[in-house]
Amino acid sequence: MKRDVSDNLTLHTDDYELNMMATYFEKGMQQRRAVFEVYFRKLPFQNGYAVFAGLQHVIEYLEQLHFSAADIEYLAANQDYSAAFLDYLSQFEFHGNIRSVKEGDLVFNNEPILQVEGTIAECQLIETALLNIVNYQTLVATKAARIRSVAGNDPLLEFGSRRAQEVAAAVWGTRAAYIGGFDATSNVLAGKKFGIPISGTHAHSLVEAFGNDYDAFKAYAETHYECVFLVDTFDTLKSGVPTAIRVAQEMGNRINFKGVRIDSGDMAYLSKRVREMLDRAGFPAAKIYASNDLDENTISSLKMQGAKIDTWGVGTKLITAFDQPALGAVYKLVSVENDRGQMIDTIKLSNNAEKVSTPGKKQVWRITEKQDGKSEGDYVALATEHPQDADQLYMFHPQYTYINKTIHDFNAEPLLKDIFIDGQLVYQQPTLLEIKKHAQRVQEQLWPEYKRMLNPQEYPVDFSKKLWDHKMNLITEIHNGQEHKLQ
Amino acid sequence: MKRDVSDNLTLHTDDYELNMMATYFEKGMQQRRAVFEVYFRKLPFQNGYAVFAGLQHVIEYLEQLHFSAADIEYLAANQDYSAAFLDYLSQFEFHGNIRSVKEGDLVFNNEPILQVEGTIAECQLIETALLNIVNYQTLVATKAARIRSVAGNDPLLEFGSRRAQEVAAAVWGTRAAYIGGFDATSNVLAGKKFGIPISGTHAHSLVEAFGNDYDAFKAYAETHYECVFLVDTFDTLKSGVPTAIRVAQEMGNRINFKGVRIDSGDMAYLSKRVREMLDRAGFPAAKIYASNDLDENTISSLKMQGAKIDTWGVGTKLITAFDQPALGAVYKLVSVENDRGQMIDTIKLSNNAEKVSTPGKKQVWRITEKQDGKSEGDYVALATEHPQDADQLYMFHPQYTYINKTIHDFNAEPLLKDIFIDGQLVYQQPTLLEIKKHAQRVQEQLWPEYKRMLNPQEYPVDFSKKLWDHKMNLITEIHNGQEHKLQ
Repeated sequence: MKRDVSDNLTLHTDDYELNMMATYFEKGMQQRRAVFEVYFRKLPFQNGYAVFAGLQHVIEYLEQLHFSAADIEYLAANQDYSAAFLDYLSQFEFHGNIRSVKEGDLVFNNEPILQVEGTIAECQLIETALLNIVNYQTLVATKAARIRSVAGNDPLLEFGSRRAQEVAAAVWGTRAAYIGGFDATSNVLAGKKFGIPISGTHAHSLVEAFGNDYDAFKAYAETHYECVFLVDTFDTLKSGVPTAIRVAQEMGNRINFKGVRIDSGDMAYLSKRVREMLDRAGFPAAKIYASNDLDENTISSLKMQGAKIDTWGVGTKLITAFDQPALGAVYKLVSVENDRGQMIDTIKLSNNAEKVSTPGKKQVWRITEKQDGKSEGDYVALATEHPQDADQLYMFHPQYTYINKTIHDFNAEPLLKDIFIDGQLVYQQPTLLEIKKHAQRVQEQLWPEYKRMLNPQEYPVDFSKKLWDHKMNLITEIHNGQEHKLQ
Repeated sequence: MKRDVSDNLTLHTDDYELNMMATYFEKGMQQRRAVFEVYFRKLPFQNGYAVFAGLQHVIEYLEQLHFSAADIEYLAANQDYSAAFLDYLSQFEFHGNIRSVKEGDLVFNNEPILQVEGTIAECQLIETALLNIVNYQTLVATKAARIRSVAGNDPLLEFGSRRAQEVAAAVWGTRAAYIGGFDATSNVLAGKKFGIPISGTHAHSLVEAFGNDYDAFKAYAETHYECVFLVDTFDTLKSGVPTAIRVAQEMGNRINFKGVRIDSGDMAYLSKRVREMLDRAGFPAAKIYASNDLDENTISSLKMQGAKIDTWGVGTKLITAFDQPALGAVYKLVSVENDRGQMIDTIKLSNNAEKVSTPGKKQVWRITEKQDGKSEGDYVALATEHPQDADQLYMFHPQYTYINKTIHDFNAEPLLKDIFIDGQLVYQQPTLLEIKKHAQRVQEQLWPEYKRMLNPQEYPVDFSKKLWDHKMNLITEIHNGQEHKLQ
């Protein structure tokens, strides 16, 4: 399972993870079992749902996990660890269980989306990388879904590599965008690595290098069959578009004149005038591509203005999730083995009610109506519960408990699937195209009220009665000073 | 020079770069010389300056640049390129020149910060990766400098890995933060890779695993000499701090009780109470560490409130540059060889005056007063000019030309240094610590008016008369329809 790759990411972890591992090791507790869960408290972009992404990179990360000799050397020189602990690290292998929702699944706030079960030491080590990967990719997939929701069936192209936050964001971000609803990317490495369709024609520099639109378009057309000309280098309406038309006419069947791209100026006005010019010249099938700081708001606005744009190139705003560049998913201990071998559920208190964690190893059940398959909400239960066998389900809001309903004739699907068992990958990832289609399908099952871009209805993420009672009991115990003792 | 590494980034480029290379190749123009320059039009965060970072990764990227057999195979299967062009790519080596400002240098809008000179094909290929790297790292270094400017001499710790936009941002971003003024990072891989001091103690999970503050702190103290206890898991003032004090007293000289960390609650109030408690218990040297969505605004506000915080852990807001997660640096062709072997300077027009590019291969001169070394402004000139030899310099605003001054007794330092010549690395990177100190030194040379966090004075980035005339002449030529012809 272990590959000794030059880009070993095992030390891509926070220093405190290793320090806690050291404490557990020196206290002889490193083998104690623990369960950690990943969840976020707030949906990004005030959206009604999020689209989970990042599992593929998590899998690749876990498969390479091991401390190289150079890693151990570095730690020996820079930390106060004992030789015994360093030796333990050099032997370290991940033997835990990972359960996760599938990529493309819709996920909501305050439900576990990924669960790690293993020794407390191995669970702790992987926290940082898991959050780093899942936080970013889920954010971008969600942003992409928002953009898709206003773009209808228009092709959406991811163009953000040059503005992405370093290389990995450009490459993995465009995969997340593809899952969330984009059709293609400009990033060739992502094309090669993931099989995403790639897209691109030429930049302003081609026109500047040739000195004028005509020579540049003509040269491009003579060397490529598929042609989209960038028409705004000198003057869109006076030079770019007439020249594109002229070259298309001269080249005839020798090229596929797919259309023109506008990258500046008033898109609403320009696109209408360009449409007229293309139609008048006998190119009604030629498309208008637009790019220039687009996002769901500008696309929505351009559509309202009747802009004649067919294909949207989205860069900065998508790949950086510009309006909210971080998802705050956290990784919380929910259960840990005590010194008598019993699993003890744990909770983190806070003065802020939202920040109180929910104890116990859980499963999330997606509840849908039997008849039409539409979403009723999510039901978070202890892993030992079996809501799928019940005739009826009492669902209530975990904070406003007087908001509740009892449902019948439902399907309950467990969302957390086995990915690794005892350190072995047991999950067969679907192809990226299957993941993308899955994301689309599950969005169709969601009521439109949860999906609207502005002020969506809050999707119910309810707790089982058992889970809720368990949480309340633990809080009471702690308030009464009965903090559990492990030693 | 070429290493065949598994993380070959040569295809980390936009599809249109390859398509333009194909056009140049098929037209026999791939060897024509060209000059591209990187610059941004607006300073980030409404700051008065930016701190350049990213050169180290640019160097590493260029040193590994080559198309692997797998890359060529992918392109053959997915693009309409000719066998001859694919063969050209498989032989491709970077032989260009790179000039760049130094990491840690202050840079401003509308001046070249990086310059690429080579064949038009090789220049085009590397655009995407260069912008991707420089945009992000410069952004984070600048954000770090803003935070440093309000933190005084307080230690600043970078804690953002889990919220960074994927792995590379976490690792390279913390290096940029270190350059910009941070002292240490929680990211161990960045510690190993770059020699940045690492920092971290324990998380809430340690306390939950042990069930109470006392057992957790005691176990940590028995297994680590340097101790900072996280005191807000149950109750900061009633449990966390008294327990930290108790453990520190019990352990005595066996630990270095460095202090306590607060990660939630009202930091201003809590820190004052915690300070009193630590002082009263005889630990006046114990520090208070704070973390929780901090940035330059919250740190500044906490200081105004008299918060007793000694050390600041900054995560999300820094590593994602939360309030402006992208720097818009662009890569523009400024000069290109025509078919008679002459270099022709180029310009990109736009209806937006700011977006008109500035033609010609340039140098940026930092002008300082001879007497006190303080900054007078930057002077952007054609590469053929020698302002350092002049007795006086006429400096004027490139848009508001009536704003001008003539200066005497000045020093002029060229900022763009040779990094690669003919594809060979000729630049000896300073150590990271030297880069960090350089960044600090050049900030000291800047007048405080340019450095204030809110509404800084605009730093002069002026053009030489020759450069300005050249730009105006080219604009006039194009408006008169004399677009240059290359063929």
